[in-house]
Amino acid sequence: MTSDLPTYEDVSAAAARITGQAHRTPVFRSRLVNARLGLEVLFKCENLQRTGAFKFRGAYHALSRFTPEQRRAGVVAYSSGNHAQAVSLAARLLDIPATIVMPHDAPAVKVAATKGYGGRVVAYDRYAEDREEIGRTLVERHGMTLVPPYDHPDVIAGQGTAAKELFEEAGALDALFVPFGGGGLLAGSALAAGALAPDCRLHGVEPEAGDHGRRSLAEGRIVRIDPPRTIADGAQVTHIGEHNFRVLRAAAPAVVTATDAELVEAMGLFAAHLKLVVEPTGCLGLAALLTHAGAWRGGRVGVLVSGGNVDPARFAELLASGDRRPRPDGPSQPPPPVTKI
Amino acid sequence: MTSDLPTYEDVSAAAARITGQAHRTPVFRSRLVNARLGLEVLFKCENLQRTGAFKFRGAYHALSRFTPEQRRAGVVAYSSGNHAQAVSLAARLLDIPATIVMPHDAPAVKVAATKGYGGRVVAYDRYAEDREEIGRTLVERHGMTLVPPYDHPDVIAGQGTAAKELFEEAGALDALFVPFGGGGLLAGSALAAGALAPDCRLHGVEPEAGDHGRRSLAEGRIVRIDPPRTIADGAQVTHIGEHNFRVLRAAAPAVVTATDAELVEAMGLFAAHLKLVVEPTGCLGLAALLTHAGAWRGGRVGVLVSGGNVDPARFAELLASGDRRPRPDGPSQPPPPVTKI
Repeated sequence: MTSDLPTYEDVSAAAARITGQAHRTPVFRSRLVNARLGLEVLFKCENLQRTGAFKFRGAYHALSRFTPEQRRAGVVAYSSGNHAQAVSLAARLLDIPATIVMPHDAPAVKVAATKGYGGRVVAYDRYAEDREEIGRTLVERHGMTLVPPYDHPDVIAGQGTAAKELFEEAGALDALFVPFGGGGLLAGSALAAGALAPDCRLHGVEPEAGDHGRRSLAEGRIVRIDPPRTIADGAQVTHIGEHNFRVLRAAAPAVVTATDAELVEAMGLFAAHLKLVVEPTGCLGLAALLTHAGAWRGGRVGVLVSGGNVDPARFAELLASGDRRPRPDGPSQPPPPVTKI
Repeated sequence: MTSDLPTYEDVSAAAARITGQAHRTPVFRSRLVNARLGLEVLFKCENLQRTGAFKFRGAYHALSRFTPEQRRAGVVAYSSGNHAQAVSLAARLLDIPATIVMPHDAPAVKVAATKGYGGRVVAYDRYAEDREEIGRTLVERHGMTLVPPYDHPDVIAGQGTAAKELFEEAGALDALFVPFGGGGLLAGSALAAGALAPDCRLHGVEPEAGDHGRRSLAEGRIVRIDPPRTIADGAQVTHIGEHNFRVLRAAAPAVVTATDAELVEAMGLFAAHLKLVVEPTGCLGLAALLTHAGAWRGGRVGVLVSGGNVDPARFAELLASGDRRPRPDGPSQPPPPVTKI
């Protein structure tokens, strides 16, 4: 049952496999942010990763381990978000045909980005069709391999390479704050922390609207919820993955939450002081630190900035409004897909 | 008359002096921008410089050359923009008292940033008082040294270190696009290009609303204009500096212009593809390249991104509106100071 759980050795092997393909992203600091929080913050900037998010690490690693047969038959992924772009680019680099199953009403910009990276997009009507059935057909009829966005040992190991790089570059950290959606980045970070920084207190940060991860770890079972309403679209998942749960149950990170208002505040700090565009989900770590800085005063704290893929118009809207509520869903704003991370 | 003109040796000496104080800023690339323009662009990211703009290079260099007497008496600067923050921080690092003369209605955020870096702010009523007289009093009565924002050999030499780093890191470039306001960054870049990249075609980029730099070089004399109405507030100068003019007359760069609409388009590309917040003036290089890319198709082109200091609310407003006109001046929007660069 646990034999397929990834370990730090898998993270280390993933790091070797993605070298030269994934960026070794920079670590940024801001004296003004440090002064405001009363501690030293080290930001690992995965918004500057290829495809604009850490997802490329896990996707490339998973695809790089395909057998020759798997490579020929191709990869399939369901996603309208960062995982789609990551699989699309990784597949192109590895010369593997990629099919991305996306809702027919996915934002045109994301469809275009996914196609731009080389993936074939299969649209489905999210109100009338079952994407899992579409996926099963592709897998069973065409022998394609499904790469899920977070619930997979190779994906988790790949995502762990971001924290590994941070620990290697930053030295001792008192705490690390990591966005917590399906649990890929957090589980990978837990593996890296366990080996490289056992004294670093790991925190997963969920949107307040969907704290099922915290509840899952507290209750010792995977808690399922309705898709949470939050601007952190990358964390709009209904439950964490099985592999992720098992890794995290062993690592026992702290889990804290951030409100949409705190995400917007963090987004403004990133823009003003670090000159960085960070998507709402990528703001989870800093947003939580705005509340929890007191516990780490005078210390050194890492923050994983998971991605920067936010449409400039939407980014502007969030920055300008200081909007403290998630947008109401409506005809032009369909409910988010479950695995949008 | 020309004995005080800076040379490449001064740029090289400045580089040694600012090492360890100024950041060696990263060079960013974007495959999507490259694909759109049909060439390879290398962005030298001075928006990630200390104080958020290249100005720190020249200010630190100039102040580092003060005599002990000058250090004791202190430095004075007029500016409500990036030069103020740069002088303020450089002075603090060098333990020199700094006085910044700012209009009483300067944005509170800029006053706070200047004070936050340690400078003393002297406010004046821009409608009733003469800031040059205030400055003269500080210089004559208290023996302070005035450091101008661009018309100074040490400032020019310091600004040239950005292009020097880019040439060293990027290798051969076919062209380099540099924002052109008072001429500090462009003159410094010309010195670096002359020594390190004589085959690289240097371009200064002015706002279309104020192309006095182009006219000055064409007419062989410093042309003066009224403060131009443009969103590129760092280039809202009425004339280029005397030292800058003489360096540039010898270097003979191409001078092109960008409209406010092109600046906003470039700002959106920076946000979407490079995940960077760039102030309007910092967008001049990419904005011009949107028009002039055809001339460099298949080549390698450098773009100096001069700064990222734009209030997040203003940034959001520009991104959201795609506003193609400068804002009308009004009571809440006083006319820009001449040396705001």
